[in-house]
Amino acid sequence: MIVLFTDFGLTGPYTGQVKAVLYREAPGVPVVDLFADAPAFNPRAAAYLLAAYAVEFPRDTVFLCVVDPGVGMHRRRPVIVEADGRWFVGPDNGLFHVVARRATASRYWVIGWRPERLSASFHGRDLFAPVAARLARAGPPQDLAQGWVPEDFKDWPDDLLEVIYTDRYGNAMTGIRAAVLPQDARLKVRGHELERARTFGEVPPDTGFWYENANGLAEIAVNSGSAAEAFGIQVGAEVHVMSAAEHP
Amino acid sequence: MIVLFTDFGLTGPYTGQVKAVLYREAPGVPVVDLFADAPAFNPRAAAYLLAAYAVEFPRDTVFLCVVDPGVGMHRRRPVIVEADGRWFVGPDNGLFHVVARRATASRYWVIGWRPERLSASFHGRDLFAPVAARLARAGPPQDLAQGWVPEDFKDWPDDLLEVIYTDRYGNAMTGIRAAVLPQDARLKVRGHELERARTFGEVPPDTGFWYENANGLAEIAVNSGSAAEAFGIQVGAEVHVMSAAEHP
Amino acid sequence: MIVLFTDFGLTGPYTGQVKAVLYREAPGVPVVDLFADAPAFNPRAAAYLLAAYAVEFPRDTVFLCVVDPGVGMHRRRPVIVEADGRWFVGPDNGLFHVVARRATASRYWVIGWRPERLSASFHGRDLFAPVAARLARAGPPQDLAQGWVPEDFKDWPDDLLEVIYTDRYGNAMTGIRAAVLPQDARLKVRGHELERARTFGEVPPDTGFWYENANGLAEIAVNSGSAAEAFGIQVGAEVHVMSAAEHP
Repeated sequence: MIVLFTDFGLTGPYTGQVKAVLYREAPGVPVVDLFADAPAFNPRAAAYLLAAYAVEFPRDTVFLCVVDPGVGMHRRRPVIVEADGRWFVGPDNGLFHVVARRATASRYWVIGWRPERLSASFHGRDLFAPVAARLARAGPPQDLAQGWVPEDFKDWPDDLLEVIYTDRYGNAMTGIRAAVLPQDARLKVRGHELERARTFGEVPPDTGFWYENANGLAEIAVNSGSAAEAFGIQVGAEVHVMSAAEHP
Repeated sequence: MIVLFTDFGLTGPYTGQVKAVLYREAPGVPVVDLFADAPAFNPRAAAYLLAAYAVEFPRDTVFLCVVDPGVGMHRRRPVIVEADGRWFVGPDNGLFHVVARRATASRYWVIGWRPERLSASFHGRDLFAPVAARLARAGPPQDLAQGWVPEDFKDWPDDLLEVIYTDRYGNAMTGIRAAVLPQDARLKVRGHELERARTFGEVPPDTGFWYENANGLAEIAVNSGSAAEAFGIQVGAEVHVMSAAEHP
Repeated sequence: MIVLFTDFGLTGPYTGQVKAVLYREAPGVPVVDLFADAPAFNPRAAAYLLAAYAVEFPRDTVFLCVVDPGVGMHRRRPVIVEADGRWFVGPDNGLFHVVARRATASRYWVIGWRPERLSASFHGRDLFAPVAARLARAGPPQDLAQGWVPEDFKDWPDDLLEVIYTDRYGNAMTGIRAAVLPQDARLKVRGHELERARTFGEVPPDTGFWYENANGLAEIAVNSGSAAEAFGIQVGAEVHVMSAAEHP
């Protein structure tokens, strides 16, 4: 299976062009749109998002990942990362750092191969898609690429105390794994302190809370409402963790 | 064929995660996105929408349906409904009531099976998708589920005098089958009385009208414009049927 | 491969209904969403867009194309065009004119066949999808259709000096092939004069420019920003080509 994790959107031409290459070069391999609205200009947020969602896929899944780099992000070599048997293809901008850091074992390649036609702006179609198709068909790269030592991103924390994605309901995923939080932790975002609930139904309508979402992330929500609207939350909003002890 | 009828959207992770399960558990079965923007918090409107669109699919089609329940909608057991040979998998919140009521024959099961991992918030991925895949592969449930007598929803009318969906052009579908309306019926919505036309081309530009859409529903539209914007229509807007005789 | 080029959107029911027909009638043939947001009410802009994106697909690709006609566009016979081995199915409203004009060889058919059920408003599902499926399965039409001499659209230029599409990042594609422009050409849109760059990284953040996009079109963009918002650009905005000599 090939999984797309991009900021390309679905209605315009970008995802379709990528899929056309994949269907041609890896016939019969299912292609899944996981995120087409990963946080553009924010590979760090995207990296924590990818790490939370990639682990539910089986070994040998190939992830084709493209997120527009932020200003001043200069290193963008095309790379392949293998982490616990899952394959990641995309730019060297930190996108694969969290998934690799959390893996038991990981390997790294720079993609040396170049296609006949390589546009300046659409490596997703011209370079990453053929490589992803080849990985899906033929497994580990041999001649394809050479070893690479990735940047260490020492300043990236284990969990990111920021909002990393807001979904269509207005729920705001944070870069924090719920499992690392105390049971009674409160999350504070844009001045609002929120308690934990297990499900939406546990709180009254129009009430904010946080919960462990279906992929293990701490997610800020409003029952029958939009947390993004109610609290003015965007990707990048800071999240503070407060223990109940701080609120006597 | 498996058909998705949800409020999950397509660009975020939810539909992709569901499809990943379907592709794994029912390899080779095509999956179609019918609605990813079915009316959230309004299973009743969604039920009339589903009924209008399901009937064009052949027998043995499996519909995986999830629509966020409204406030106070408590019953949400996972169920399977078979109606005239089509299969529906989803929550017991009325979503399948209209399709079953209009069918010649229908059968009902509560899904007793539970997956190893069942998240609190994403039954679409964890429970309904594996069950839909199994139905698509193996046909009628044997051990899977037990009988169930559905709620009768006596207060739900044969046709719903409300707007149940607005599409990307701003056309507003009602819950009324055009076939039950007199030929000269007018529809009144938010103070505007609209006459019937057969096609968009029959009325001048920027003029409102209603017509029988390609799935048999009475739909409110504006030629070369947006009825939703022009008349301020949202899902749930009341629609009144007026016969020409009322306008001497 | 069947490629969809429409203004149907993806989340609502239209694209899904078309795909359901294609999966049934051409099992195993991949279907790609190229554009689901082609410019509605503007078949001329759509024609230049289609021409730029169709050429990267291999021979025998079948394009199913529907764009809502503008007011006063009366001719809408269902047609098939074959241009350099690629197949185009859709309405006779000029949508295929540019792709045919730029082809070495092209052929034309009017679709005489009619399905049992033909709705007034959804020929994409009822007529074009079965025909596209048949072309993908069985190749060139024999009995299907009769010859046709298309309108000549003499007033349509070789390249269209207008914005023909704005993407989700706010980049504005023009109907101008970059290859026909002098290297030092500036593009003027809504009072803003923009110089050429090769990539986004060549200009400072928040700066406007134009570049040759990955499909050969001159495209107006802002580094790390939205050109559509910054310059108030919509589809149809006029674009003027200025040579550097005009700016001493």
